[in-house]
Amino acid sequence: MLTAKNVYLDYAATTPLDAAVLEAMLPYFNVVYGNPSSIYSYGREARRAVDDARRRVATAIGAEAGEVFFTSGGSESDNWAVKGVMLREENQDKRFITSQIEHHAILHTAARLEKQGIDVVYLPVDEEGFVQYDALVNCLREKTALVSIMHANNEIGTVEHIAEYSQIAHQNGALFHTDAVQTFGSIPVDVNKLGVDLLSISGHKIYGPKGVGALYVRKGTLIDSFIDGGAQERGKRAGTENVPGIVGLGKAAEIACGRLGVFEDRVTRYRDYFISRICSEIPCARINGSLSSRLPGNVSVTFEGIDGSTMLMKLDQKGVFASSGSACTAGSLDPSHVLTAIGRTEKEASQTVRFTIGLLTELDEIDHVLELLREIITELK
Amino acid sequence: MLTAKNVYLDYAATTPLDAAVLEAMLPYFNVVYGNPSSIYSYGREARRAVDDARRRVATAIGAEAGEVFFTSGGSESDNWAVKGVMLREENQDKRFITSQIEHHAILHTAARLEKQGIDVVYLPVDEEGFVQYDALVNCLREKTALVSIMHANNEIGTVEHIAEYSQIAHQNGALFHTDAVQTFGSIPVDVNKLGVDLLSISGHKIYGPKGVGALYVRKGTLIDSFIDGGAQERGKRAGTENVPGIVGLGKAAEIACGRLGVFEDRVTRYRDYFISRICSEIPCARINGSLSSRLPGNVSVTFEGIDGSTMLMKLDQKGVFASSGSACTAGSLDPSHVLTAIGRTEKEASQTVRFTIGLLTELDEIDHVLELLREIITELK
Repeated sequence: MLTAKNVYLDYAATTPLDAAVLEAMLPYFNVVYGNPSSIYSYGREARRAVDDARRRVATAIGAEAGEVFFTSGGSESDNWAVKGVMLREENQDKRFITSQIEHHAILHTAARLEKQGIDVVYLPVDEEGFVQYDALVNCLREKTALVSIMHANNEIGTVEHIAEYSQIAHQNGALFHTDAVQTFGSIPVDVNKLGVDLLSISGHKIYGPKGVGALYVRKGTLIDSFIDGGAQERGKRAGTENVPGIVGLGKAAEIACGRLGVFEDRVTRYRDYFISRICSEIPCARINGSLSSRLPGNVSVTFEGIDGSTMLMKLDQKGVFASSGSACTAGSLDPSHVLTAIGRTEKEASQTVRFTIGLLTELDEIDHVLELLREIITELK
Repeated sequence: MLTAKNVYLDYAATTPLDAAVLEAMLPYFNVVYGNPSSIYSYGREARRAVDDARRRVATAIGAEAGEVFFTSGGSESDNWAVKGVMLREENQDKRFITSQIEHHAILHTAARLEKQGIDVVYLPVDEEGFVQYDALVNCLREKTALVSIMHANNEIGTVEHIAEYSQIAHQNGALFHTDAVQTFGSIPVDVNKLGVDLLSISGHKIYGPKGVGALYVRKGTLIDSFIDGGAQERGKRAGTENVPGIVGLGKAAEIACGRLGVFEDRVTRYRDYFISRICSEIPCARINGSLSSRLPGNVSVTFEGIDGSTMLMKLDQKGVFASSGSACTAGSLDPSHVLTAIGRTEKEASQTVRFTIGLLTELDEIDHVLELLREIITELK
């Protein structure tokens, strides 16, 4: 249980559900519980709630409602986007381009495509984590069906230059997908400014519910369905709609959108305060990722000579919750593919801790963690 | 909104969330909101809740906890079971056998496999909806990787003889999957008595939450993951766990299991009362499906000479909620594939209404609906 003394600094892994979001969801559990696909009036009430949520999500990303499809979360959205395009008959002899630092929902999907004989290229990144534009241009010389590059990296926080990448992809006849799971709700995400055809978002990263997400599919994009079956989601995603979850995602998107500027300012200020004090007070510390184009909440630090998992355990004992990187691979003994891609050694990767700041983080919590960090480092050195 | 005067008779489409289930879920929205994959103590609390739910679901179906994998619902479970087995390299030149009356989550998945060159056979059924055993035996002469036959049909309620089918499938070296979405929580579902390797269940059909389900995978069964990515669900199903949903499914499964006998007795008694009064008081009515091996709550009726959708609209106007068949295809103008498979004409299929009785149904509601049915039929004839 989180107590007043605990400090949660893993907002990139998941966030608490906003009380207003829970309140919006509650009626759809056992009052308006009808199946939205039912044609009677009671089902139509649930349908209206789903449609309303769809409009809210669409508004939040600058899309039309008809371009938003609800899924069970970011991983399903990523799987759908990539498999739904690449496994179409006309694309199976074309290339899929992605980057070396994508989330595993993309990388493991790419590996499966490779096993099926599809040509996959993993673009390298520079030491700040930026995809190399020239390498992308070069790879696009081969007939490419889809490029998927994440909007911002979940481990090191680098925000990629998606608009540039999508433009060159389009000039070469390829579709463009971005995983915006980490950016949506934290920085502006506009499908037209980004110029993307497909975009993945998740509910539980934006103070919305777990188990729900969405895939934006630009009108006219040729994509197969991933979960086949009933006619839900205009025949594109089968399964009875998770009405409370969808309502929650819609509400969370609306709230996140409404406070975006304030959130970004505050969290960025706290992040910069945290980073500048780490750099000035902890000599063995080195920040990973770009300092100029960075997620508001991300503080990824390599502590030279300090084992990351021991550090995390010590922090945990003192009620501070941070991570070694992606929660999806927590507990794995493999070094982070992201940290090695930006040139960190395996040893350095194992000395890395990711703090992520969120809506409820207070300055005195950061001060408290800085004090603990100094104590733990002294103890471990 | 449902009022005291409304009668909900579409429990096969979805059910209201049990208050005790909601209560069990609530702490996991914003108190224990940690990511279960996180290694710190706060994440482990969420992990324990997921593990506990897994044990409850496993107990409810006679499985081991390690054989239960959480999904986003029945449709995902069905897609995963079939694609996860059939798209494995060693199975792509083998046959997939299913029946003509499966849910679209199976049939549309089968159609996609066919497009990819896989040999699919759709077994016919007799006029009560039973899969023809001899036809199955015959089809199994070709090297078959997987047989998928639903435990009970969602439209006409016929409960299939799964134990017989799975035995002959195994004797021929094929795996066996059953979609138990309609039976789980209504009649005993035991993976060992049924002899199945794979079994799909859903939360929202058993007074649990929408957006969550599970796939039972017998230990040792060779199946690829469907949603690729993070290491969740022992590397078999990626995506941050829907902790509240999973907790809800576990609780709902436990409750359903505990009251199974009482539920089955009561609902069966009400169903038989409803059916016998329909048969004796409405001359144009004819019950679809088996009368001896039938889901407790299913009352599928063809009203000769009466248009089903007009009937449903009239019932809706009087606050009675029933359906024409599967909610997943509600609004479709195509005749039900299930009703035509059991020999009903397209016209008869369009004259069919499905009432499904559930936990909250009262006898006086059934009396009230019978009265309305007589009124509406007189009016429409």
